[in-house]
Amino acid sequence: MKEMLDRMAKDLARIRKNKPLIHHITNYVVMNETANATLCIGALPIMAHAKEEVEEMVVAAGALLLNLGTLTPELVDSMILAAKKANELGIPVVLDPVGAGATALRTSASTRLFAETKVDIVRGNIAEICALIGRRAEIKGVEALSDLEGAEEVAKEMSKTKGCTTAITGKIDIVSDGTRIALIENGHSMLRTVSGTGCMATTIVAAFAAAEEDRFLAATGGLIAFGIAGEKAAQISGPRPGTFHVCLYDALAELSEEELLSRARVRFI
Amino acid sequence: MKEMLDRMAKDLARIRKNKPLIHHITNYVVMNETANATLCIGALPIMAHAKEEVEEMVVAAGALLLNLGTLTPELVDSMILAAKKANELGIPVVLDPVGAGATALRTSASTRLFAETKVDIVRGNIAEICALIGRRAEIKGVEALSDLEGAEEVAKEMSKTKGCTTAITGKIDIVSDGTRIALIENGHSMLRTVSGTGCMATTIVAAFAAAEEDRFLAATGGLIAFGIAGEKAAQISGPRPGTFHVCLYDALAELSEEELLSRARVRFI
Amino acid sequence: MKEMLDRMAKDLARIRKNKPLIHHITNYVVMNETANATLCIGALPIMAHAKEEVEEMVVAAGALLLNLGTLTPELVDSMILAAKKANELGIPVVLDPVGAGATALRTSASTRLFAETKVDIVRGNIAEICALIGRRAEIKGVEALSDLEGAEEVAKEMSKTKGCTTAITGKIDIVSDGTRIALIENGHSMLRTVSGTGCMATTIVAAFAAAEEDRFLAATGGLIAFGIAGEKAAQISGPRPGTFHVCLYDALAELSEEELLSRARVRFI
Repeated sequence: MKEMLDRMAKDLARIRKNKPLIHHITNYVVMNETANATLCIGALPIMAHAKEEVEEMVVAAGALLLNLGTLTPELVDSMILAAKKANELGIPVVLDPVGAGATALRTSASTRLFAETKVDIVRGNIAEICALIGRRAEIKGVEALSDLEGAEEVAKEMSKTKGCTTAITGKIDIVSDGTRIALIENGHSMLRTVSGTGCMATTIVAAFAAAEEDRFLAATGGLIAFGIAGEKAAQISGPRPGTFHVCLYDALAELSEEELLSRARVRFI
Repeated sequence: MKEMLDRMAKDLARIRKNKPLIHHITNYVVMNETANATLCIGALPIMAHAKEEVEEMVVAAGALLLNLGTLTPELVDSMILAAKKANELGIPVVLDPVGAGATALRTSASTRLFAETKVDIVRGNIAEICALIGRRAEIKGVEALSDLEGAEEVAKEMSKTKGCTTAITGKIDIVSDGTRIALIENGHSMLRTVSGTGCMATTIVAAFAAAEEDRFLAATGGLIAFGIAGEKAAQISGPRPGTFHVCLYDALAELSEEELLSRARVRFI
Repeated sequence: MKEMLDRMAKDLARIRKNKPLIHHITNYVVMNETANATLCIGALPIMAHAKEEVEEMVVAAGALLLNLGTLTPELVDSMILAAKKANELGIPVVLDPVGAGATALRTSASTRLFAETKVDIVRGNIAEICALIGRRAEIKGVEALSDLEGAEEVAKEMSKTKGCTTAITGKIDIVSDGTRIALIENGHSMLRTVSGTGCMATTIVAAFAAAEEDRFLAATGGLIAFGIAGEKAAQISGPRPGTFHVCLYDALAELSEEELLSRARVRFI
């Protein structure tokens, strides 16, 4: 485990040294927030979604992030084009299936992405991941209402059937590549008081994926880093969500390799 | 009056207990800001505007909010679809006619919404509301330049002719359902220094509408709550708009039922 | 030089007195941020991009700002329509060619804008401006990786061949109208830690252009004002990007004519 954490700390250093470009095709609610999270962790954001330019833009990227919030059919087409080009070039594709299960548009977009392209990492809540493998879960809009029993099994099943690494975030975050499982206890309840923190978590995972070939370690490292930032932010903000939001960026920028090592609360099973 | 305020305080408690979903079809400037305002008052935001999914999404909503900023003809079509479904299901529809009167697109969208669907509550500035009933008012972009004399009459006329509850915000906020009138003196001039605070006010009204069947009380309660939050934020921020913006979220989250009762400055006439 | 600075200070006062409307057709990442920057400097923002309304909306504007981030072909059409109307009415057109050179869509949009309309001021980084005149520069997404030698020559060439005022921002900001050159040393490295600060700089330039007929002075005044605000914000925030972002709005709102005069670090050559 020490070895894996050391590697994640080195990934964080590598992000900051290489400043990989993270190409986002993402929702309009969190464009600014995820761009800033990208900068804070040390990478460079580019937001571009026109079908006329996504294939050209993704060429320079270290990772491609697809986020299904505020989805339209045109955005799905752009995502497919960009993901196919990313697949060709070996650029990792990270999916945030916001609202999968809530509407047919979002569920079918997810299905199409898995059918027509290779998704390397998916990060969602339990309801969204359940929707992707045809299980039912309680959902309200884009919020999963409760952690499901057996989330580890869901993560494993998702990874095996879809050939990807799966990250399910909740009180405890779960990462699986179908074989390995990581359980992450970093994070803070204040993260639920700010819109788009799930999307930001996916952004941090994408930044790690641009620096780390092992998708399982990238997803785990990203979620540990983001969770620690949330804890640090809450220490300063207390229960105030506006202040917490500001402190979250500060904490992401300030996060050191040493802190990642000393504050990680993760078990590998 | 004490009775009505008690009921609004209970509505606030009900929002936080039931966490109603507020479905926004809104402009790209304030998507993040209104999502966060929704969370801070205790409700859950969902932003979804594709015509392919709005009818499906609104089914789970406690209120539907339509905002005409950064409007396109496609968004108007989605709003009509969503509002018709909301009408069918008895879900309150809240309209923010941003820029009505400024361009034909925005004025005609408002007209179409009132003609083809039932709008339960409209919240705008004096110029926007005047535009909806064919009166002229001085406007600059989306900003009304001055409070108009006779705003109470405008609110009444709007409510009677369109069959809705009308909220006109300005130095003094006015709410009318055609019969009753509330005059609200809560609020702060710092609210004018941050983009989208009018849109946030509408969001808070929508959250109250999800918890309160009497539209007049919902609009009044929402504007009192938002106004108090503005006052509290300004006490901390002073004249600094960036800081005020942060404090506004904190104040919304912190607002208690007791504060709503003790700080409300409202007259019913 | 004293004379020119005095004039810029008066322009700042004029912005706050007249509150010109700045019509933005801009990208979805920074809509809220540039709207707030507009308010903080004392002007009024309007974001409107539907081709059905841009010509009607721009009529009331003191300046039109076109920003090529998150571009689509539809947005380009809207920009052309709005710019033609602005040209007719003598309203200054300010272009932010985000990502010019990165994709064909963005480069060709810039080319079309210069071919079909009169752009009064362009504000970009060195890579973007190089792309507009067919020179090559190192670029990564929308970030120029290094200041190019000979940026002054690039600014001059751009201005002469395209008939506009050119502002190239970087460690030192350069403004040229083809004859005059200003070198501005205001600014702070923290500005690179927040997404959209380049776009905000263009917004401040547009506000100055609404108050100052000499485009060269408008661009120079705007960049000095924004640079000073960045310096002041960083004094308070230190290395924390979330806090810096908040303080940047505060500093823009607080910026006085006296500070503009006393803190300006500019040379005219």
